Amino acid sequence: QYSQMPRSIGGLQAAGEWYVLRDMLPDLENAAVLDLGCGFGWHCRYAASQKASRVVGVDISARMLARARDITTEPNIEYRQLAIEDIDFPPRTFNVVLSSLALHYIADYAQVCRKVFDSLQPGGAFVLSVEHPIFTALAAQDWYYDAAGNRLHWPVDRYQEEGLRYTRFLENEVIKYHRTVTTWVNSLLQAGFLLQRVEEPAPTADIITQYPGMKDEARRPIFLLLSVIKPAV
Amino acid sequence: QYSQMPRSIGGLQAAGEWYVLRDMLPDLENAAVLDLGCGFGWHCRYAASQKASRVVGVDISARMLARARDITTEPNIEYRQLAIEDIDFPPRTFNVVLSSLALHYIADYAQVCRKVFDSLQPGGAFVLSVEHPIFTALAAQDWYYDAAGNRLHWPVDRYQEEGLRYTRFLENEVIKYHRTVTTWVNSLLQAGFLLQRVEEPAPTADIITQYPGMKDEARRPIFLLLSVIKPAV
Repeated sequence: QYSQMPRSIGGLQAAGEWYVLRDMLPDLENAAVLDLGCGFGWHCRYAASQKASRVVGVDISARMLARARDITTEPNIEYRQLAIEDIDFPPRTFNVVLSSLALHYIADYAQVCRKVFDSLQPGGAFVLSVEHPIFTALAAQDWYYDAAGNRLHWPVDRYQEEGLRYTRFLENEVIKYHRTVTTWVNSLLQAGFLLQRVEEPAPTADIITQYPGMKDEARRPIFLLLSVIKPAV
Repeated sequence: QYSQMPRSIGGLQAAGEWYVLRDMLPDLENAAVLDLGCGFGWHCRYAASQKASRVVGVDISARMLARARDITTEPNIEYRQLAIEDIDFPPRTFNVVLSSLALHYIADYAQVCRKVFDSLQPGGAFVLSVEHPIFTALAAQDWYYDAAGNRLHWPVDRYQEEGLRYTRFLENEVIKYHRTVTTWVNSLLQAGFLLQRVEEPAPTADIITQYPGMKDEARRPIFLLLSVIKPAV
């Protein structure tokens, strides 16, 4: 089912926030890149196309990694089946770490921030996207409708109550962790990172034309994107 | 009417977010402090009580400043009637600039960020609170109620649509500017600041006991607090 979503068929170009995330990435030429929650490997292959020297994709799903390996020909991309929390790379292994829409599945985000910090070269970048706290606050993750089925507004509640949310996605129960904007940002700062940029992308007019279902995405933020750097010593 | 609100009668102790804002301020001893939108001068007098060497409070309201002057005895506090956008202090005048719940009334926030940056000493801090983007997105600034008058949730809409909101506050029409989290943070980064900390305070149990009307404040963020520093050269 996930493989039938626009972003799974059309790849990065069909993901409304990709243009913003891409713009937040540093130059990847000759970079050692780590992708946390790589899924089908779209971002890994993008990094390879930008002449990254080495790319490691980590994902917990054997099925997604099998598909990723099927559609990957670049010899310098390596996929590892691993929970994001369990990464254990030597210090200063990577120049760039990215993570697209994966960290809201992770129980201990602060620990991941510290591990990523250690795994980066000084001056290295961590660029991440997650579901926006406004989107994750209520487990229903849906609009509030009037009797005629019109979307009245996006309901927010339980915002300050961080923790597990049992949501449904494509008919499966999915466990996510709601965190406030405060936690998403401060955990990075506390790990030692310097914040470079925050984004809450809205779909472009082109994307809305191509995928009309996205027209309401400007009414509330759905993704939170953050880019940080490890200070150069 | 404003003067009848808990925070106007009880001062800073009755403002739920004060404990967090205070904790984000650097040591004020011997500091030259600027308060943007000082109102009745509570923060100015707090700064003086912390042995700031000099405190300047700026506000556009002659009436608020008259009251501030009435209740201020400290000789090193100076009040100036001025729009926040019109500040024009010499470079490096202040060690600390603070602004409590005022910048959402300002049309050109990015310019204020640049002016504050210039007015600070290297290593100086800017600590600010504003109404949270989730709170300002809809002009109604109210809960969504069921037929029985219960608060169902906080409605969010028009989030990505920055700009004017005509709201009502204590029976007066008030013009505010809605900005996204992205704009509140990135404008500071673009001015040259380093982000130190983000907070979205929820009222403490003590505050809720004292002011039961605040019990729903944990259901959605109402304030966004940011502290940044100007890099030491």
